[in-house]
Amino acid sequence: MREDSFVLKGNICYAKTKDQLSVTDQGYLVCCQGVSKGVYPVLPEEYRNLPVTDYQDMLIVPGMTDLHIHAPQYPFRGLGMDLELLEWLDTHTFPEESRYKDLDYAEKAYGIFAEDLKQSATTRAVVFGTVHVPATDLLMEKLEDTGLVTYVGKVNMDQNSTDDLRETDAVTALDATAAWIKETKGKYQNTRPILTPRFAPTCSGPLMEGLGKLQREYGLPVQSHLSENLSEIEWVKELFPWSSCYGDVYEHYGLFGGQAKTVMAHCVHSSDTEVELMKKKGVYVAHCPQSNINLSSGIAPIRRYLEEGIPVGLGTDMAGGANISMFRCMADAVGVSKLYWRLADQGKRPLAMEEVFYLATKGGGSFFGKAGSFEEGYELDALVLDDKGIRSTRTLGTKERLERCIYLAEEGKRLAGKYAAGKKVI
Amino acid sequence: MREDSFVLKGNICYAKTKDQLSVTDQGYLVCCQGVSKGVYPVLPEEYRNLPVTDYQDMLIVPGMTDLHIHAPQYPFRGLGMDLELLEWLDTHTFPEESRYKDLDYAEKAYGIFAEDLKQSATTRAVVFGTVHVPATDLLMEKLEDTGLVTYVGKVNMDQNSTDDLRETDAVTALDATAAWIKETKGKYQNTRPILTPRFAPTCSGPLMEGLGKLQREYGLPVQSHLSENLSEIEWVKELFPWSSCYGDVYEHYGLFGGQAKTVMAHCVHSSDTEVELMKKKGVYVAHCPQSNINLSSGIAPIRRYLEEGIPVGLGTDMAGGANISMFRCMADAVGVSKLYWRLADQGKRPLAMEEVFYLATKGGGSFFGKAGSFEEGYELDALVLDDKGIRSTRTLGTKERLERCIYLAEEGKRLAGKYAAGKKVI
Repeated sequence: MREDSFVLKGNICYAKTKDQLSVTDQGYLVCCQGVSKGVYPVLPEEYRNLPVTDYQDMLIVPGMTDLHIHAPQYPFRGLGMDLELLEWLDTHTFPEESRYKDLDYAEKAYGIFAEDLKQSATTRAVVFGTVHVPATDLLMEKLEDTGLVTYVGKVNMDQNSTDDLRETDAVTALDATAAWIKETKGKYQNTRPILTPRFAPTCSGPLMEGLGKLQREYGLPVQSHLSENLSEIEWVKELFPWSSCYGDVYEHYGLFGGQAKTVMAHCVHSSDTEVELMKKKGVYVAHCPQSNINLSSGIAPIRRYLEEGIPVGLGTDMAGGANISMFRCMADAVGVSKLYWRLADQGKRPLAMEEVFYLATKGGGSFFGKAGSFEEGYELDALVLDDKGIRSTRTLGTKERLERCIYLAEEGKRLAGKYAAGKKVI
Repeated sequence: MREDSFVLKGNICYAKTKDQLSVTDQGYLVCCQGVSKGVYPVLPEEYRNLPVTDYQDMLIVPGMTDLHIHAPQYPFRGLGMDLELLEWLDTHTFPEESRYKDLDYAEKAYGIFAEDLKQSATTRAVVFGTVHVPATDLLMEKLEDTGLVTYVGKVNMDQNSTDDLRETDAVTALDATAAWIKETKGKYQNTRPILTPRFAPTCSGPLMEGLGKLQREYGLPVQSHLSENLSEIEWVKELFPWSSCYGDVYEHYGLFGGQAKTVMAHCVHSSDTEVELMKKKGVYVAHCPQSNINLSSGIAPIRRYLEEGIPVGLGTDMAGGANISMFRCMADAVGVSKLYWRLADQGKRPLAMEEVFYLATKGGGSFFGKAGSFEEGYELDALVLDDKGIRSTRTLGTKERLERCIYLAEEGKRLAGKYAAGKKVI
């Protein structure tokens, strides 16, 4: 018997589309060789030889994808929330990230990060490291050990950063990046490299051009930041006066979708031109509601992106966000969409619970291919939620229990089991 | 030795003003007969006979006041967040509250509520019950048993509610309320009645007039709702066309500050006239940021209220808010103030961590008199926070640890001790 072939029994709930929730009470979720064979009210004959774990009255939902998270910022989560983006980077973020040149520090910090992420609702993540290759290698090893599925980026920045963190020049940066890709591509089962220009202001033209070449050479995906903050957007316009929009800078260097699968964090203040380009190139939006609150960035127009058919997932943006909980992230996404409706545009109705659940699972999961759903053919990521700790006089249905888990985030709920890519993680 | 005279040792932190945080590492907090004698770096000779509890490296902060919480709504926390206020009341709230005519149901529901509130960061609360006198009596008993300090209101509403919940008429409602006041006033040590017209739309003129008379007769404080939602404000204007603003309706009947100590929840959309009246009459604002998000109400202009000198505290507004955590409430208050600054008025700078800590402790605590501070003469409410579960590479100062506790809300932190009005609760 392979360890990645099994059946889970419980109250099973997953998003088929953003408007369609599938609920099977006391159902059977079948996993063969790491891949879902679907959910059944009665276990089909052909799967009766598989081992069944009966989670009784617990909820079983797909694992969540955190589309944007900075591993090195985990040590200062919940601290220094009094600044906007650019001052926050200089005051809190860059000094912390410069510590990762010390591998002993990285060992300790990434050890905590990887263990806490393993214990969270996240089964897949698109992760920023730092500019340091040895520390990023270490991060990849630690994440591989968790059993989670991740893309991890060695950050690139050769300008507009602190002396401690800035890469010497574009050539040095590109050489180091190429060597890192060669070393890590294909090395791990669940952990893959992703190209990671930090954001346009910290990357020279030659660096971005070189990264575009590496993208084409190795076929890697790309992650970066886009239109998070108004001052940042002004700065990009000054640095790249030829660009039609912030996203056009990445596009110019071949780092904005198309054959380069790309996820851009934030997109709070994207112009019409930029939205058009994102749509045309199939660029993913990593919506990070809590970070956009904490750094006073604003509220991303997610309803618009959904209407335009732009792919969207959710991100915690640790440590712009203070919590790595994807449950909290879902609740925050609903919350800010309500304030957007009230304060910015009453033509954009708020996100529903079903929609943010879709974004956290299948929406973000699709960046990894077939992930985030229990439909047949999807890689099996699952969470088992024991909500007995949430005491109530009410007897709730599965959908209501899911809703309550989202709004109460980490309160009263226990992760009783976790599976990623068909293997038991917890 | 009296049980309400003792010394607590640890890293002590409290708000003197909204801008001034007092921190004494490894300090001594002295409590004599339930009242603070102040915080000292070295224990004064005169207190050396008191028993000392050494909480070692833990944080000791004042207990928090939840200025607005609906006890009967606790069973449906985290559910039904897809509606605005008036539809939400009809669909979710009134049906739930009607169950409290059944004392067995109330016994179960209020048992859970009281126990969970006891385990929370809240030491004092201003609580809504339902219209039912027996259930409200039961709630008061259960809260008294927790050791927490509360005002509890039997709700009044004689119009615009469901048949199940509406009081028969103003006379019947007032008779029941008067009997309830007589029975409960002075009955408990920590639990006191408060007049509770639900909100203007559900109260007839004669009912409000009678409540005003009861207020003057018994000198009770008053709690209600004010200018939460735009449709609600329109409705109040239709129902009371003579009023200059929503608050003027309460004012007209003697239920709006002055000699009637009053707290009004929300004040999201208060007009200039209303703000002027609140200021003149010293009406407290119970700021409920999470509820204002969940019910798409908007963001209350708290910076303005602080600038005007209007007294402000924080409320969870369970179940408009899904969480009873005052830590989460503080983080939400900072968060919405940042979005207010970004989306509504850049003249109103966001609230700082120190400010929301003040609001949650001394700000709201002042509704109870001298509460929410460790200054000499304050009734002693204290929380002992063990944050060892929040793993980090960082060594943090006490203020930073407090900040992290606020932003991470219930994550990784344990309530290692809790004192209310000078007595150990946990």
